[in-house]
Amino acid sequence: MSQINVALIGYAFMGRAHSNAYRQVSVFFTPALTPRMKVLCGRNRAKVEHAARQYGWDEASIDWRDVIARPDIQLIDISTSGDSHAEIAIAAAEAGKAVICEKPLARSLAEAERMLAAVRTARVTNMVCHNYRRAPAVMLAHQLIGEGVLGQIRHFRGTYLQDWLVDPSAPRSWRLDRAKAGAGTLGDIGSHVIDLARFLVGEITDVTGALDTFIRERPLPDDASTKAPVTVDDAAAAVVRFANGALGTIEATRYATGRKNHNRFEINGSLGSVAFNLERMNELELYLASDPAAVRGFRTILVTDPAHPYIKAWWPPGHTIGWEHTFTHTVYDLLEAMATGTPASPSFEDGVATQRVMDAIERAAAARNWVTL
Amino acid sequence: MSQINVALIGYAFMGRAHSNAYRQVSVFFTPALTPRMKVLCGRNRAKVEHAARQYGWDEASIDWRDVIARPDIQLIDISTSGDSHAEIAIAAAEAGKAVICEKPLARSLAEAERMLAAVRTARVTNMVCHNYRRAPAVMLAHQLIGEGVLGQIRHFRGTYLQDWLVDPSAPRSWRLDRAKAGAGTLGDIGSHVIDLARFLVGEITDVTGALDTFIRERPLPDDASTKAPVTVDDAAAAVVRFANGALGTIEATRYATGRKNHNRFEINGSLGSVAFNLERMNELELYLASDPAAVRGFRTILVTDPAHPYIKAWWPPGHTIGWEHTFTHTVYDLLEAMATGTPASPSFEDGVATQRVMDAIERAAAARNWVTL
Amino acid sequence: MSQINVALIGYAFMGRAHSNAYRQVSVFFTPALTPRMKVLCGRNRAKVEHAARQYGWDEASIDWRDVIARPDIQLIDISTSGDSHAEIAIAAAEAGKAVICEKPLARSLAEAERMLAAVRTARVTNMVCHNYRRAPAVMLAHQLIGEGVLGQIRHFRGTYLQDWLVDPSAPRSWRLDRAKAGAGTLGDIGSHVIDLARFLVGEITDVTGALDTFIRERPLPDDASTKAPVTVDDAAAAVVRFANGALGTIEATRYATGRKNHNRFEINGSLGSVAFNLERMNELELYLASDPAAVRGFRTILVTDPAHPYIKAWWPPGHTIGWEHTFTHTVYDLLEAMATGTPASPSFEDGVATQRVMDAIERAAAARNWVTL
Amino acid sequence: MSQINVALIGYAFMGRAHSNAYRQVSVFFTPALTPRMKVLCGRNRAKVEHAARQYGWDEASIDWRDVIARPDIQLIDISTSGDSHAEIAIAAAEAGKAVICEKPLARSLAEAERMLAAVRTARVTNMVCHNYRRAPAVMLAHQLIGEGVLGQIRHFRGTYLQDWLVDPSAPRSWRLDRAKAGAGTLGDIGSHVIDLARFLVGEITDVTGALDTFIRERPLPDDASTKAPVTVDDAAAAVVRFANGALGTIEATRYATGRKNHNRFEINGSLGSVAFNLERMNELELYLASDPAAVRGFRTILVTDPAHPYIKAWWPPGHTIGWEHTFTHTVYDLLEAMATGTPASPSFEDGVATQRVMDAIERAAAARNWVTL
Repeated sequence: MSQINVALIGYAFMGRAHSNAYRQVSVFFTPALTPRMKVLCGRNRAKVEHAARQYGWDEASIDWRDVIARPDIQLIDISTSGDSHAEIAIAAAEAGKAVICEKPLARSLAEAERMLAAVRTARVTNMVCHNYRRAPAVMLAHQLIGEGVLGQIRHFRGTYLQDWLVDPSAPRSWRLDRAKAGAGTLGDIGSHVIDLARFLVGEITDVTGALDTFIRERPLPDDASTKAPVTVDDAAAAVVRFANGALGTIEATRYATGRKNHNRFEINGSLGSVAFNLERMNELELYLASDPAAVRGFRTILVTDPAHPYIKAWWPPGHTIGWEHTFTHTVYDLLEAMATGTPASPSFEDGVATQRVMDAIERAAAARNWVTL
Repeated sequence: MSQINVALIGYAFMGRAHSNAYRQVSVFFTPALTPRMKVLCGRNRAKVEHAARQYGWDEASIDWRDVIARPDIQLIDISTSGDSHAEIAIAAAEAGKAVICEKPLARSLAEAERMLAAVRTARVTNMVCHNYRRAPAVMLAHQLIGEGVLGQIRHFRGTYLQDWLVDPSAPRSWRLDRAKAGAGTLGDIGSHVIDLARFLVGEITDVTGALDTFIRERPLPDDASTKAPVTVDDAAAAVVRFANGALGTIEATRYATGRKNHNRFEINGSLGSVAFNLERMNELELYLASDPAAVRGFRTILVTDPAHPYIKAWWPPGHTIGWEHTFTHTVYDLLEAMATGTPASPSFEDGVATQRVMDAIERAAAARNWVTL
Repeated sequence: MSQINVALIGYAFMGRAHSNAYRQVSVFFTPALTPRMKVLCGRNRAKVEHAARQYGWDEASIDWRDVIARPDIQLIDISTSGDSHAEIAIAAAEAGKAVICEKPLARSLAEAERMLAAVRTARVTNMVCHNYRRAPAVMLAHQLIGEGVLGQIRHFRGTYLQDWLVDPSAPRSWRLDRAKAGAGTLGDIGSHVIDLARFLVGEITDVTGALDTFIRERPLPDDASTKAPVTVDDAAAAVVRFANGALGTIEATRYATGRKNHNRFEINGSLGSVAFNLERMNELELYLASDPAAVRGFRTILVTDPAHPYIKAWWPPGHTIGWEHTFTHTVYDLLEAMATGTPASPSFEDGVATQRVMDAIERAAAARNWVTL
Repeated sequence: MSQINVALIGYAFMGRAHSNAYRQVSVFFTPALTPRMKVLCGRNRAKVEHAARQYGWDEASIDWRDVIARPDIQLIDISTSGDSHAEIAIAAAEAGKAVICEKPLARSLAEAERMLAAVRTARVTNMVCHNYRRAPAVMLAHQLIGEGVLGQIRHFRGTYLQDWLVDPSAPRSWRLDRAKAGAGTLGDIGSHVIDLARFLVGEITDVTGALDTFIRERPLPDDASTKAPVTVDDAAAAVVRFANGALGTIEATRYATGRKNHNRFEINGSLGSVAFNLERMNELELYLASDPAAVRGFRTILVTDPAHPYIKAWWPPGHTIGWEHTFTHTVYDLLEAMATGTPASPSFEDGVATQRVMDAIERAAAARNWVTL
């Protein structure tokens, strides 16, 4: 079992979740490559040093370029805000490092394509962190669909609902500034729905829909007496068509009062259906039309059995896992891809494909028509 | 308590449900007008006579024109297939009868408008039978929204999911023939979602979306060896905007494997949210942002309390009612409207408004753009 | 299709529910015997006459003895308070009438046994109205268990939870007076749990447990300033053993704040499990151990399919029924038993058996030991 | 922030869970004492060394006496099988070490009392690992009850349901051998229910009930052709009374087909109710009688808000945690108790009290009567 050295750039919410994944993956799994938590990077020296100690990184650094240049680093993890993804990822690729990047991959389709070109040219392992693919229940749904258990897919119904912008006095953070965030709700959480749609159903070919910004200015985080414009979408809703003939709806919002992390999808096929909700992430609902008529119904599968994806590594049946575990699974699969030289998934190519759908929804909403991808 | 004589035209599924409502309404409620189940009309004499005896009608008739002409009839109930709604409703109005008509009101917007013109000219009480408004949980949602409990409405998310066309060998019934049915899934069950959207959120101003027909020909009911084309939509999905600024999604399908009568909506407002599912029609989910942070959550209200709409007439708390009761409530409210001379609701005007949305969705889907109503 | 004349004694809550069943049964079912709603009996002439008109009875009477003596009456329905069950039932049997009696059958085991002796001697059709056996989901559970689908039964877990006595100012009604009601919560709703246990699992052989009266005096209904003692149990809890080796728990209370009609059971067998809750009476949860490990889970069966008990008579799949329908099914099965001369079920023998369990729980609670039946 | 050295004895299922807690606690919390994972103890040198590396312990040892004697160890964690708890705990106490012991504390009440005497004499911090107290939803329930939100408690209804013994070919492991395990289902999982009952409602004063062993011999783990007797209970059911007047039911079984880790309780008070199920451990159901009649219902609180116990240390609202986190919370609270010199909870005294209830249930079941504690 050989070891690779990881550098993580960003130590906020996502950096904390990724750190946990690197710390836990070798304890519960036995990846062919063991990650060494080498360097944590950030802009504020005191803070990054504190975070490095707290999360278990060997070193702290305030210069990501320097870190990328180090020959002892094999994997760069980009958990920064969206406006630095491209620069860091391209530099990492050019330095021959494997790279995993938080979603959405980029602030625009063009930017995402440049990132993809860089990793292709460099032929480095690359991954975009759509961690929800690795919820065991989602992976189980993917397996069932792959095995044909649902038959021909007719419908995808995906929503990602949160409510943290309902309060008009919530501050105008960087996430609400297009220059910094690239996209709003559509990018931040809508991208997850799109990624799941692609992962589970297939490519999207046509979109129509709307974006909306309900509250158009908000107080600045540092100065509540000054208001600044909200330049991203608060909510997005789309009707989409898939290459395989399925019809879909996609919605993302930060104004669904009471919904905290309601990343829910339902998929209807000619032979069965599945439904998933991240707020009950240890469960998958499954309906099989082949069950006898008198005893048909949606089964609530508690996805904690050794027969389920990733679960053998954790606890006995009935012992649930949490949100953070999806990152551990993601990192595990990334390490396996690096060890075997096979492509990681979702790759930057997937990231570009998702970005293309987001871009099409934005264009469709602006032009008020359907857009074919 | 005076009495009115009712004639019901149609004795199939809907005729049976309406008959039950007339039979039950005076037992459980005390309407100002008591309905007398006078005449049941249909095309097949033996069958309509049998149905009349079975459901408790005084007489049977095979000539609806004759029945409408009778001076002793005050209320005409149209529970026939869509292709006869207009003719009967207009004749009834011209004869000065109150009229209640099954949904969707007509086969086209133009037809619906002619029906509206007729009842307006005749100044007769008129109602379109969107019975789900009268599920107590839905009426409770309506009351809460009206009282401002949810604050400003941001989102409507409505789906009506069934699965009875999943099987490709299911016959090409009249419901799948545009000439007879007027519309497909969008009209049959999508109209309910649109009616609920309008009832709960308000007028829809813009739509975009798609219709689809997944299985384009099916065996004839009488001759399984011959296939006939399906000329209506199997599924419809739309993104809509409301006059009050809310963003909505509307979906209806007969291909949602495992969903039998999944007429579900969720509404998010700035102060709270509600969710309803017809398959659990005695329940309303309610979230109030004003609850203390530690004890906030969606409440599952068992809508069987005397404090809830219509319930006092039935049973003590916790004793649920069924689907059929929505018709009894509808008829009760119609009788009250007739007694007091106030407009019934939803009226033919509502029926036209719903038809206008359906029409706009069809045009938007065909033209692949947004349509403003 | 011949007709029988029914006399119903009692026009309060239960009388109303039974009236509805007689009115509806011939409309939706085609029983071999059609019930004619002949006489409604009660003690207050004005009220019983009003109720007779309201519910659709031909006549009203204030003398049940007189009614029982009438040769044109074939079926006596006893929906009175518990203190008159025995007298009426015995008189009815002696007059050769079929009899259906509300639960619990009697105020004591001895009384119940006298009633059973009377119907046995008279050889009349007899039934105790444990209507929940006829919830389609319960009957489906019964069928599945009968077919061996659950294997050997290991556990029964039954609770009937209500909350209408939580408020200490709720009046001391007749139901809280042992002389009138015979029993308290154990008899009123605990008897339903025991009946379901016997119906689904089999005979109970041993019991232990406790009764409790939390609030020992309450204001009189007519005079809130005077308090009277509560002489029945507020709550009952028992551990029971079944003849087939299963272990059970039974609980009934009127102090389960928030539970309105929570008649819930779960049964675990060696091959599967079922769970039911009256508050969601159109659903049955079923788990089958034989399902493949990856897709095992409790199925929520929407018990509204033609393949389900009683449903063909009502509406298409997904169209739910309500609490009142359980009475219609009960009456239907009673009429079929009368028509065919086969024993009705649950019979007075079942009523006695249930009473024996209640009696044993009371004795066990008093003596603080196990009681073998 | 000073550091303490921990020795963990046992590296199987529980050892793994405890290791994870020590590894994670300082990353997410900032305990006043930081645990250093010093020594992992076990009987098989190769295995314990492998586990020590895997879980992150500095050293491995096969001699727990030796480890206890080391002056550099401050905390002994006992995660062994039940037959060694007493010996190790007493030795640890005598050596002046703080001690945390897995549940059930001992194989008998007498043994538990000796353990309690030892920690009392030695005045060392002591804790029994009933980790479910530290599920945030359970702690929230505890807080609400403590604040009087539920009013006077009337009912406790606790079940712990698993199904891993349903298959008769499941082996006769040490857990089914009374000599090794001390107790069966009652001790293994029933003890959790009793601990939660005591934590949430208060002391139990009287018990009655039954134990059962459904399958009385099973194949040996090493030799499937030889059967050995099962000498512990498979299932336990009890009715209990609490000092505060509440009535309770307690049930534990390994034969509830389909229930994997169904540790569920419901508590009804005069003002409200709560319900919890470990299989959905991020949720608490709460009913408040004080809500207006029209909008009352059980709220499903997603217990992932900063306002909820322990959550601030983890992730933003809506990001769930898993089973393992309950151990991290337990260890955190233990460390705080050690740092401040306050008693840990649940202490060995709690362990003895729980054991006393288990003992009473066993005696009541054997003698077939109520036992007063």
